[in-house]
Amino acid sequence: MKRRISILGATGSIGRSTLDLVERSPERFEVVALTAQKNVAALADAARRTGAKLAVIADESRFDELRDRLDGSGCAPAAGTDALVEAGSLDADWVMAAIVGCAGLVPTMAAIEAGKTVALANKEALVTAGSLMTDAAHRSGATLLPVDSEHNAIFQCLAGSRLADVSRLVLTASGGPFREMSAEGMRRATPKQAVAHPRWSMGAKISVDSATLMNKGLELIEAHHLFGLPSERIDVVVHPQSVVHSLVEFVDGSLLAQLGSADMRIPIAYTLAWPERMETPAERLSLADIARLDFERPDLERFPALGLAREALEGGGGQAIVLNAANEIAVEAFLGGRIGFCDIARLVAEAIGKIQVPAPASVEEVVALDRETRDRTSLLVSESCS
Amino acid sequence: MKRRISILGATGSIGRSTLDLVERSPERFEVVALTAQKNVAALADAARRTGAKLAVIADESRFDELRDRLDGSGCAPAAGTDALVEAGSLDADWVMAAIVGCAGLVPTMAAIEAGKTVALANKEALVTAGSLMTDAAHRSGATLLPVDSEHNAIFQCLAGSRLADVSRLVLTASGGPFREMSAEGMRRATPKQAVAHPRWSMGAKISVDSATLMNKGLELIEAHHLFGLPSERIDVVVHPQSVVHSLVEFVDGSLLAQLGSADMRIPIAYTLAWPERMETPAERLSLADIARLDFERPDLERFPALGLAREALEGGGGQAIVLNAANEIAVEAFLGGRIGFCDIARLVAEAIGKIQVPAPASVEEVVALDRETRDRTSLLVSESCS
Repeated sequence: MKRRISILGATGSIGRSTLDLVERSPERFEVVALTAQKNVAALADAARRTGAKLAVIADESRFDELRDRLDGSGCAPAAGTDALVEAGSLDADWVMAAIVGCAGLVPTMAAIEAGKTVALANKEALVTAGSLMTDAAHRSGATLLPVDSEHNAIFQCLAGSRLADVSRLVLTASGGPFREMSAEGMRRATPKQAVAHPRWSMGAKISVDSATLMNKGLELIEAHHLFGLPSERIDVVVHPQSVVHSLVEFVDGSLLAQLGSADMRIPIAYTLAWPERMETPAERLSLADIARLDFERPDLERFPALGLAREALEGGGGQAIVLNAANEIAVEAFLGGRIGFCDIARLVAEAIGKIQVPAPASVEEVVALDRETRDRTSLLVSESCS
Repeated sequence: MKRRISILGATGSIGRSTLDLVERSPERFEVVALTAQKNVAALADAARRTGAKLAVIADESRFDELRDRLDGSGCAPAAGTDALVEAGSLDADWVMAAIVGCAGLVPTMAAIEAGKTVALANKEALVTAGSLMTDAAHRSGATLLPVDSEHNAIFQCLAGSRLADVSRLVLTASGGPFREMSAEGMRRATPKQAVAHPRWSMGAKISVDSATLMNKGLELIEAHHLFGLPSERIDVVVHPQSVVHSLVEFVDGSLLAQLGSADMRIPIAYTLAWPERMETPAERLSLADIARLDFERPDLERFPALGLAREALEGGGGQAIVLNAANEIAVEAFLGGRIGFCDIARLVAEAIGKIQVPAPASVEEVVALDRETRDRTSLLVSESCS
């Protein structure tokens, strides 16, 4: 029987990779709904190619264009937030939650509450609303499958294991472009230097997160929510080649690791076919060709963001939301040339110190706290620049 | 409920490590039978400590001493081959098959035919009688759990997977002490050089097998029988640090690897607790401390034994039995200073060329072919030396 799937965020990088896999295996999948933020042309094109039943454009001003482009295709056009929620809760078995940012929270939650198997590619979902999402999954019977290469690696390593047999998770970090730079060099680092990620080709924001190691800090928080282990049992090791995507240590001292080429189609395929596997065109890894893998401890002095994220996780309440939102504003200010590289972590720490909040009780409260933090961090940025 | 276990070969290295784990977790295990070849004192001591019901000494001349040492312990003494078979088929749930050499074949087969969960540490079982053992397991419902660190690694990586999703197994090899030696240096290599294994502390015979890479060739044959994959889907990669014990590649391009310190208690514990896990005192691995892992292709020119083993596997029939027995005689001759290091593979190739046999139909036929090969290879050694 075909797996009925929907893709929230079908025109972004993860959405396109998912479509690529789905279109290579038409015998396995039937597409129910596709959504996009603004890219009507790509959305309509994907909907026609895959025979989707519903195509939703988040930006309502583009509804007419979508309707015109879908004319005669048999695919129903829709627009706006309610339609996104509908796309997430429609009668698919499997939903890819790949809408970027806080805009993805509500439709992702809708898919979880509808008891779907949800492939989670939206980082904010677990960082800012981890307990809400996992509690909802527990109530609805939804299955959460992590797409991020590190968490997907851990999920693969855990297959068939009891959590009681796990002693430690080990997230690998590339170390980013400043891994070997002096503290002085980092103070002078430019946006151009920061976005030159050594391994994966990524957007500017996430590249800066990789340079500060904040990305690993956010993943630490995600790992806690996904796998239910406390902060002290989740380690980070720097591994510049990014071949080992993460590891699990068991109580007997054995470790399992997942390895693969830098191709997101591998973790996406694992979620698409789970609990089986499916072929992908991803390049096969040859350890003999790679020849060498290195590992080292992260330098918490030069990369304070990692420690801040751990503190936010351990501090609980709304701290992870503040961490995430303050970081976005600070990174934006850095990319705009308004603050220095080392000011990013400083501003995040300041925001966490100033905005004390209890854990939010709903996704709406998460979104509100996110907005409040952005506003207040923007003020901190302005003060910092004046 | 306690797992009822028996250990065939309780006083060797694997047997002692198994006892160590069992005695650390008395709440999990109840010892049924223990056996040993000659070491009466260690056997009787282990039987008393663990409260075993039966202790068997293979060497019948030592029965009286065993009986005296067990006097008043409540443990029944026995001796000889039939008693070994009884020990393997007694009412234990789990049997460690760790008797070294062809002497282990019959008791191991008895445990398999009795439908036990059998932890296989006897290399000869799968190399020389692989099809017989796996066919018997299929008939009796026995479960075979590999103890060897490489096969145990693969078994861990496969947990929860369908064989249809596996594309390739990758056995890691330390490369042995001659990994970087010139062909000329290898021709002059002494037994002392050959037994200096860089990672694991092992006996002389297996150390020489590690130096020729014959050990990896034998493991290739074992992997074929254990996991049912053909020769061309089982690769070997040299990995000098021996931290990654082996890997599995899946159809999606993902690889899982098992890592651990060089402590056989980790794979043994995995078989003891399977499908769960149990604590071990094995040292925890720190990738940051290890810092670097290297990988390279094996040099089939300098290490022809690996190619010979692959040919024996692909040739089928009794070739793997001839390979194994001829290798033992050749290694013995090398350790005795009668032939050179490079003569080992040459003699094995010669023996395989001269002794053509169909696949044996029983363990008894395996043992007979093993003896015949030893006699004929000894002649080849004599001719070679004259």
